[in-house]
Amino acid sequence: MTDLPLEPLFAGPGLDRADTLRADAAAIAALAENHTARQLEWCDGLPVLSPEGKLAWAPVSRPELFLGFDGDCPCFCSVEAVAPDARSAFPAMALLDSGDAPLFAAVLSLARWHSRHGYCANCGQPTEIVRGGWSRRCGACDAEHYPRVDPVVIMLAEHDGRLLLGRQPQYPPGRYSALAGFVEVGETLEAAVARELGEEAGINVRNVRYVASQPWPFPSSLMFGCHAEALGGELRIDTTELEDARWFTRAEVAGALCGARDAPFQPPPRAAIARTLLERWLAA
Amino acid sequence: MTDLPLEPLFAGPGLDRADTLRADAAAIAALAENHTARQLEWCDGLPVLSPEGKLAWAPVSRPELFLGFDGDCPCFCSVEAVAPDARSAFPAMALLDSGDAPLFAAVLSLARWHSRHGYCANCGQPTEIVRGGWSRRCGACDAEHYPRVDPVVIMLAEHDGRLLLGRQPQYPPGRYSALAGFVEVGETLEAAVARELGEEAGINVRNVRYVASQPWPFPSSLMFGCHAEALGGELRIDTTELEDARWFTRAEVAGALCGARDAPFQPPPRAAIARTLLERWLAA
Repeated sequence: MTDLPLEPLFAGPGLDRADTLRADAAAIAALAENHTARQLEWCDGLPVLSPEGKLAWAPVSRPELFLGFDGDCPCFCSVEAVAPDARSAFPAMALLDSGDAPLFAAVLSLARWHSRHGYCANCGQPTEIVRGGWSRRCGACDAEHYPRVDPVVIMLAEHDGRLLLGRQPQYPPGRYSALAGFVEVGETLEAAVARELGEEAGINVRNVRYVASQPWPFPSSLMFGCHAEALGGELRIDTTELEDARWFTRAEVAGALCGARDAPFQPPPRAAIARTLLERWLAA
Repeated sequence: MTDLPLEPLFAGPGLDRADTLRADAAAIAALAENHTARQLEWCDGLPVLSPEGKLAWAPVSRPELFLGFDGDCPCFCSVEAVAPDARSAFPAMALLDSGDAPLFAAVLSLARWHSRHGYCANCGQPTEIVRGGWSRRCGACDAEHYPRVDPVVIMLAEHDGRLLLGRQPQYPPGRYSALAGFVEVGETLEAAVARELGEEAGINVRNVRYVASQPWPFPSSLMFGCHAEALGGELRIDTTELEDARWFTRAEVAGALCGARDAPFQPPPRAAIARTLLERWLAA
């Protein structure tokens, strides 16, 4: 198992975001005129990748979003209509260079947020891009609106040496993965994990432990991978959310990750943090 | 130090949110008619508290938000204009019963979100409350909008046995606290901690570790308390964000938390997760 990556996709430092520059519109405009400045290429709702999986760049034409610096080069992006879900992006994500992945995630979320937030939620009037593309301001009521980052918990529950995995109806045949759900207002990470496992699988848990996080730009989630101890093994599945949920042994999980012919399930893809959680559980 | 609480305020399970009921408007309307149903009392932009710090309830009059069940009692809330910042709520937070605190946080964020999100960010038309108050839908373009939960990192950096704490200009005299900032799109928790400490204090860090989380309803943050190891002790402070930042020894932190007369700083209030981070660091 030593060749498996243990870091989630989209993790890493990404660009120098140079956020102190964002308030200085004149400085950003001057950077866009710099001969080293460049702009991300897009095609069919996704950033274009080279055959090596690197982001493709073009001369600056619509510097609507200031992304930061790659070394000395100022990097920009236009506001694009973005592919709506992960399925259309999975081929690109499988090719994507891990060093460029954090920027890929950031621009997908940022561009999509702009394309769907042209009006003020407070008063209904049109808003305009400010802060180099990192917020929008309403000229009518002066409200400022920031891109969303929506926390999601995704968790492995363990009981008696076995892991709980579930199937959503839209999954490819045979796939099982970690249960997940949005964190709501007024909840800690730990409370959200306990609530979701109670709602979806009918189990009570203790000792919720954070493992790793991953930006998931469909459209703007931040996935918090967690582990929890289930107090019992009896399941009461919410069939409006899940088609099935089961406990799997360590040998079954190992077989699935290795692609064994008799594996009892297909694991989540490498791009997903659920895969990282399974790999780390096996490696522990 | 054994009498200090190690759990952040607003942590805990709160109500049974009964989220599977939210799609059933008729069921929620029937619950509002139930003789055990009750509605939170508000005054001056905050929920009313009893002298014992418990939330105060009244008969149902405007059941706009369905909060869930307290035992068998259906609990509702009206959409209110909410006090805008933590300062006006600190007296209530000091009195607040810890069991009622998660609900206090949830209703503050939820009510304020509704009062500031009456229009569709996608098309500018008015939206209406749906799902028992847990989202708003636009009749014109059919977009659905959910309450925001904004992840924030708040962190202690450690170097050579000392902790980095900073002062924002608006703090009360003498207070130092943990540095903090919003997580942006395309970032992991760990990347956000590293970026914020680089931007605000000019330090590089490794081994970022999650400690605890806390809802902070001003207006809708989810604070992720973290610890990081600084690679060096030299500071380069961003004076647009911080008035000062310094390294404090264990003895200095202990003195501040105990309220020692010669303590070199005033600690953050008990309601803040920064206080929890300091207490846990001392207890470790």
